[in-house]
This record gives sequence, C-alpha cells and structure tokens, in this order.
Amino acid sequence: MLPLTFLFKVKYNEVMERIDDLQFENLKIIQDTDGFRFGIDSVLLTDFARDIKSNTTIADLGTGTGLLTILLSKKVNPKKIIGFEKQKEVADLAKRSVELNELDNAEIKNIDIKDVFNEYDRNSFDVVVTNPPYKKQGTGINAANEKQQISRFETTVDLAGWIKTASNLINSKGSFYMVYRTDRLGELIEELNKNKLAIKRLRFVHSKLSEQSNLVLLKATKNGGTFVTVEKPLIIYNEDGSYTEEIMTMYNKGKENS
Amino acid sequence: MLPLTFLFKVKYNEVMERIDDLQFENLKIIQDTDGFRFGIDSVLLTDFARDIKSNTTIADLGTGTGLLTILLSKKVNPKKIIGFEKQKEVADLAKRSVELNELDNAEIKNIDIKDVFNEYDRNSFDVVVTNPPYKKQGTGINAANEKQQISRFETTVDLAGWIKTASNLINSKGSFYMVYRTDRLGELIEELNKNKLAIKRLRFVHSKLSEQSNLVLLKATKNGGTFVTVEKPLIIYNEDGSYTEEIMTMYNKGKENS
Repeated sequence: MLPLTFLFKVKYNEVMERIDDLQFENLKIIQDTDGFRFGIDSVLLTDFARDIKSNTTIADLGTGTGLLTILLSKKVNPKKIIGFEKQKEVADLAKRSVELNELDNAEIKNIDIKDVFNEYDRNSFDVVVTNPPYKKQGTGINAANEKQQISRFETTVDLAGWIKTASNLINSKGSFYMVYRTDRLGELIEELNKNKLAIKRLRFVHSKLSEQSNLVLLKATKNGGTFVTVEKPLIIYNEDGSYTEEIMTMYNKGKENS
Repeated sequence: MLPLTFLFKVKYNEVMERIDDLQFENLKIIQDTDGFRFGIDSVLLTDFARDIKSNTTIADLGTGTGLLTILLSKKVNPKKIIGFEKQKEVADLAKRSVELNELDNAEIKNIDIKDVFNEYDRNSFDVVVTNPPYKKQGTGINAANEKQQISRFETTVDLAGWIKTASNLINSKGSFYMVYRTDRLGELIEELNKNKLAIKRLRFVHSKLSEQSNLVLLKATKNGGTFVTVEKPLIIYNEDGSYTEEIMTMYNKGKENS
C-alpha cells in the first residue's frame, strides 16, 4: 500500500478513527482504525475506470468506507454516484467522508445489496462499479472482528448474487467495472456470461513482472459483443521493491491536479 | 518470428519446399514455400505445455505442418502423440517431417476434426493440444491461396466445434492446452465452460510490455475445479525491438540440448 499522508486520529462515538489524505484532488477519507482500511485495489479500479463518461449515473456496490464513490465523484464527475453499503457504522463513516469532501454528486446509501430493488428500479444506472468482498465464506483465516469480516467475506450475497444484482441495475449497453481476485476468474467469467455482461477490457495486476497476477480489473458491457482487449499488464513494484513509474504516476497525477 | 536456420529448398511433386532447423534437439521441419509457415505461437505453446507428463497419449488437433507434434514428441517424450490434419497435402508434408526426424512416438493422421470419432474412441487421450485456425470465416483479408486459407480460417469446424471435439477426446481429469487470439477470449471461455473444461493456467503474450496482449496460452482440465492461475506475462520483444531474455532462453535451451 502506498504511504498515505496520515492526517490525524479522532475519537467518534467511542471509536478511534483516522483521517487520511487520498493524495488526489485534496480528497480525504475517514477510516475506523479497527475496521477494514482500503488497499490499493480501489485506486487501481478508479484509474482503470477512467473511460466512464461524466454525464452518467453510477452505482458503487459495497462501497465500504466510500473510497471508490469519493474518488470517482471527482475523477469522472458523474451526474450522480451512489455508494451502497449494508453495514450501518461503515456507511455512516462513508457519509461523513462524503460531507468532509463536500461532494454534491455523491451519496451513500445504507442498504443491503439483496434489498436494493426495494428502493431502486431495474436498469436505472448507466454504470455499476464494485470492489466486492473477495473471500468465500468458510475459506481462509477469518478477520479479527466482525466489521473486517463483513468487508472481506461474502456474507448475505455471494459472487453470483453480486453480479446478478449489478447486471439488473445497469441499463442495456451500460458498463460494469470490477476489481477481483485473479484466482477466481473462472467463476467470475461464468457469472458474467450468465448475466449477459460481455467482457470488453481486462487488465491483470501483478505485484512484480516476474510474479503471477493476484488481481484483475475488468470492464464488461451489458448485452455487448464478444471482442475482448487484454491490456498491458499493470505492475505494482519493480524487481527491487520500489513502486513502478505507472503507480507513481497514478498517484502523482492526483498531486499535480490538487 | 525468430531467425531460423534456413537449410535448403527442394522441389517435391512440383511444389517448392524449404526445410528449416527448429533450433531444438536438432529437429527439422519441411514447409511449403507457398503455404502457411509456422510462427512463434507453436513454440510458445510447446514451452507452456512443459508440465505434460511423459507417459501420456496426446492428440494435436489441426497440426498443419506438424510443428507442435514434432516439438512435443521430443520435449515431453509422450507414449504417443498423434497430429490430426485434414488437408492431405499438408498432412503429407507433416508425415515426411516426422520421418525426417525419426520420431517413433509421433504419427500424423490425415483426417477432418469432424470425422475423428469415426476412428477414435471418446475419452481416449490424456491430453489434447491445439493451435487452431484463428480467424472466423468471412472476417479479415482472405489468405493468398487455398492452403493458407484453410490453415488460418475456421472452415468445416468453428471454435465451438473444435473445443467440443477436444473435450470429447480427453478423458476425465485430462488436460487441454491451447494457444489462441486474445481478442476472442470471451467466446473461448464460454465454449470451455460449456464443455466442462475448467481453466487452470492462463498466460498472456504481449509483443511488448507496453502493448495489449495478442495471444493467450491456456491449460484447462476436464471436470476440474475453479481456481485459475494467471502466470507472469510473456513478453516477446524488449522496448528496443530485441528479443527478451525469456524468448532467447526458450530457443537457446533447445540449442544447448542439441
């Protein structure tokens, strides 16, 4: 993870929080020091999703602390972006981050993905973005506390349900952007196919050029055609452990613009 | 394409042929100077398929001039490898290459993929390898002559039929290796899923690190599980246009062994 400018810790409702500078457009984010803090994956997805048009409506499924919603609201400047988060405490944190950054086109909605069609129409968004829970229930080591648990693991909605919801939210020819674990690419593609989300662009993320990919960035189009572009690999570290030029540029650009 | 040691041209049944040194284990290949000559893709697939075990039976679907069959017969040393080729003239060329190299475990069979189960049982091979025609009928510029046309384009069997045949030839838990055009990855994965071929390994080939992928190497297992490895990218050229160390090693290893 890149060294973020740590601004300060505050106590809010008996919970210790920290505010970090996102090093992009002067944006800041509030995070629970005990909860799940964001990694580089949302930043990579924001960069990958740079082709989203500015006059669109975007749904961010499982926004967590609101990072993707906050970054995209500035980077893309959409008509509206709504971050959906089912954990009340986490959603409250995200809401306060949106307020802190004075983002008029961003909104956080405390709702479970499975209940989203109680409040929103089908095919009502131009774009869905998501950095969903990566781990299957019952696999790996469980996170230290419940909040981390819910942010990292599939709980009420698994990958299949997540993709289905995304597809139902997007209008025909609308776009879907996702970052996910490469080792689950097989399941992911099967679910995309089932839900008429045709892969358009893939970009594989490798910690180093000499290593296998751990994350994949993808863009799919609802009811789209079959041709796929696999973009140049995204390498995080040089072989000596320093960040690659591309990663430095991704962050520095934010600095330059701010 | 790597500079192969061009050995000599000969006239055979009124057709001009050339014999090239494969720079691996002293293997040679006869090619029609007017036909479709092999590219780097079969060499990359041979390297990628290095985990095939030596006591296996292998079917090479659409072997063309026999390159994959010839390379794997030495590289893997299988119990038996059979290269299927439907064009009689091309199959004859491949047969003479197999004889020229004195390969006892390799055989060329002049048969159309669609007729293969007239002569072979289902589930009768441990492994299927293939470097199939890449182009859909009716797309792109047609090849200069009929032999090139058939080698490059899907004719009697399209991608779906090709994958189905491969799956039916392989026994349960057997392996499937393929090199294909990256831009058709969507269709490819759909067909693999339909035919119970679970992707295990993917490796994307990029001409240069800074460019999108044009070829993909894949290994799938019949009735296998869902976890996928996307290996480190395979880069052909350095940014200055010279071959990368990995490509040089792939060929030099052959030289060292010979």
